Amino acid sequence: MTPIIEHYIESHQKRFLEELLALLRIPSVGADPTCQAAMQKAATYIKDHLVEAGADEAQLIQTAGQPIIYAEKMIDPLLPTILVYGHYDVQPADPLDLWDTPPFDPNIRQGSIYARGAADDKGQLFAQIKAFEVMVRTEQLPCNVKFLIEGEEEIQSPNLAPFLEKKENQKMLQADVVLVSDTSMPSPDQPVILVGLRGAMMFEITIKGPNRDLHSGSYGGVVNNPIHALCTLLAHLRDDDQKITVPGFYHDVRTLSKEERKSLVNDAFTPNTYQKDIGLQANVGEKGYNTIERLTIRPTLEVNGIWGGTIGKKKTVLPATAHAILSMRLVPDQEWTTIQHQFEEHIHHLAKTLPALAGTQVTIAKTAGSNALLIPSQSRSVQAMKKAFKDTWKGKPPLCMRHGASIPVLTTLHEKLDAEIALLGIGLDDDNIHSPNEKFGIENYLKGIATIVDFYRNFVQS
Amino acid sequence: MTPIIEHYIESHQKRFLEELLALLRIPSVGADPTCQAAMQKAATYIKDHLVEAGADEAQLIQTAGQPIIYAEKMIDPLLPTILVYGHYDVQPADPLDLWDTPPFDPNIRQGSIYARGAADDKGQLFAQIKAFEVMVRTEQLPCNVKFLIEGEEEIQSPNLAPFLEKKENQKMLQADVVLVSDTSMPSPDQPVILVGLRGAMMFEITIKGPNRDLHSGSYGGVVNNPIHALCTLLAHLRDDDQKITVPGFYHDVRTLSKEERKSLVNDAFTPNTYQKDIGLQANVGEKGYNTIERLTIRPTLEVNGIWGGTIGKKKTVLPATAHAILSMRLVPDQEWTTIQHQFEEHIHHLAKTLPALAGTQVTIAKTAGSNALLIPSQSRSVQAMKKAFKDTWKGKPPLCMRHGASIPVLTTLHEKLDAEIALLGIGLDDDNIHSPNEKFGIENYLKGIATIVDFYRNFVQS
Repeated sequence: MTPIIEHYIESHQKRFLEELLALLRIPSVGADPTCQAAMQKAATYIKDHLVEAGADEAQLIQTAGQPIIYAEKMIDPLLPTILVYGHYDVQPADPLDLWDTPPFDPNIRQGSIYARGAADDKGQLFAQIKAFEVMVRTEQLPCNVKFLIEGEEEIQSPNLAPFLEKKENQKMLQADVVLVSDTSMPSPDQPVILVGLRGAMMFEITIKGPNRDLHSGSYGGVVNNPIHALCTLLAHLRDDDQKITVPGFYHDVRTLSKEERKSLVNDAFTPNTYQKDIGLQANVGEKGYNTIERLTIRPTLEVNGIWGGTIGKKKTVLPATAHAILSMRLVPDQEWTTIQHQFEEHIHHLAKTLPALAGTQVTIAKTAGSNALLIPSQSRSVQAMKKAFKDTWKGKPPLCMRHGASIPVLTTLHEKLDAEIALLGIGLDDDNIHSPNEKFGIENYLKGIATIVDFYRNFVQS
Repeated sequence: MTPIIEHYIESHQKRFLEELLALLRIPSVGADPTCQAAMQKAATYIKDHLVEAGADEAQLIQTAGQPIIYAEKMIDPLLPTILVYGHYDVQPADPLDLWDTPPFDPNIRQGSIYARGAADDKGQLFAQIKAFEVMVRTEQLPCNVKFLIEGEEEIQSPNLAPFLEKKENQKMLQADVVLVSDTSMPSPDQPVILVGLRGAMMFEITIKGPNRDLHSGSYGGVVNNPIHALCTLLAHLRDDDQKITVPGFYHDVRTLSKEERKSLVNDAFTPNTYQKDIGLQANVGEKGYNTIERLTIRPTLEVNGIWGGTIGKKKTVLPATAHAILSMRLVPDQEWTTIQHQFEEHIHHLAKTLPALAGTQVTIAKTAGSNALLIPSQSRSVQAMKKAFKDTWKGKPPLCMRHGASIPVLTTLHEKLDAEIALLGIGLDDDNIHSPNEKFGIENYLKGIATIVDFYRNFVQS
């Protein structure tokens, strides 16, 4: 980091913080229909800040869902181009009663900003925008930059995917590397460069029983209760070895060699600490695999939500319907379209054969999915990130690791733009993303800005 | 019915209706903590109307929960005493979007009042109060009357039960018969006198997994998901023959002779019509029994509600907890305390042995239960009701039938007061009690008042 850059960051850090806090105050929950105005506000806020930071061109592109922001600064067609990807939508904040301070009224405690979206992804995205500002204002921008920022990452990017299908958009976004700050490291002194993410796919299952809610006394015993039917269906999706029962589900899963499996283990991840942190009473998971393997190289199926009948109140109802939301995490070489088909077939087969489902109707709503992403550790961008973290972060040397989470659109960006993906994550594993009390360290924010600036230079020079 | 009575009902029917509508406008949902003021308001409204109708004494008795109303008119200690039981609490009204008109803004359509509590039990209870008024005002009250009206029937009368344990209260309530209008008939021209009700018992099961809501990508695969654990647990509570798996559950169930089983069948109940009415796609239920048997002489276990994780929104959470509310219906000679114990033992056994529950914590919250109620068809009150319906209702002769629902406190009243129970139900089976669009026929209300007056005379004369 040059002294000029260091000085710029230091002398503007108060404003950098204020600007991020203002963004965090906008409740941009993409999945919540009441947040429509907030989504537009957040998108406009970011677009304006990209212009402010030095973009030559910045626009809001309207879609069938939330607007996409595109901005660029082209300084020389012969220089490399970095495409920064990020998202301004955040996860829903409920359950609200578990937050120590309100999710959209950011609070600073012990050096961290507590707010929904602080780490995922507003804080990390804003570090990218501020790094861009730093380079432009200090006249040290070494290459062309493009920004692609969406508002539907948390709902599997349903409108960005078709946007990326269009040839003219692929041309507009053409880049050498897609740079993303939306991941985390286990501790402040142990940077991690992710080289693998799982794919993802969601489903909503609805079971309909009687044509209306019934009294469980007057009708109990002669109606297949949709809640019981749903529970029986979901219970049948795993066997006692915690394997998913969908036929063919594991068929294409890439088998790793002993050496490859061994290489997943490192000092930065200790299963015991992990287990204690989340209050786990037992070591559970798919038989035949250890914790790190279950989290990275094995696919999963989780129920994310269930509801039906009375909620929280004692009421003797036998409900007409019951619902569940499920998600899968996929690994190399599972193909989401194949798995989606296998899953639907399996559900319909179970619905036809399980006695608890006789007379009920099962429907499945589905989103588009994504395949897993694997990044070669020897790629130009991984090397540039390693050097940047080493020089700027001043902690242990960065580790290359796989992660269990998904950023579905990255697989699409990788394929459609034929560009490397660089995951320059500056959050912490315990930032409580998707949970109450999400946070982001101010130190992570400022050091992150410096690391991003360093990455640009390393990448262009390599 | 004497001409004087007929004239009184006819000339006051407009006011009778207005008074009931005013009561239906009070949202007295006992299970909803936000309805506290409404509960007091409803109790006071009824107490005032009892005084207005002619009670010598009427009081609100405060309890740990909702107030109990007691009123009486003693005309001669040598005459019989009728104790009228009813309740002013109503079921929660949700799901609100399925109501054609607001649940607490009563709407009259095609001769019926649509409102939560219209039939269960405000409308039927008010028919009792108005019948009392009719007899007092026309000077035709033939015996002593007491009223016991509670506000916790829909939550299994947790405070009335201990109230009935006290000797002084038993003395105060002493009566020859407990008269209750809180049941229904299959059609307007087919009165039914119920001679059997199932007992009831409720549970809430909570499963705790990790110490906080987690991201299903970052943690999926190594945590036993509480929703999946709960589904697996609930799925194990029934076998493929739709029998409840709780060991001992059926042990004490009274076996009926072939003749007794045959006598349950009658023209007023046709399984096909029943199945069509509720939109059932298949004839389901406990193996070895037909529809009417499954509804009356066989015990059940139903899940009334389930919730956990994200509800209605796509959110990739792996939640910390999941919950379910369950209820049982018990038959003669099942003892609820025994069954409650067996159920808890079974749940804890499953929790210990099912792999899907490893590392989770299961807790069970329970309410007091009630045993089933059987009323001898030859009793004095059943005979008096038969005559009253025959003379007043002008439909087919009344039928004696068992019913699948429960009025838990009646078993207690029967035992503690050593009094007959008379179920003079004037609602219709399709009144949608506990469901959206609950209703009560104005004709049922007015004919019900006349039938109650007739019952008093028949009972005293018998």
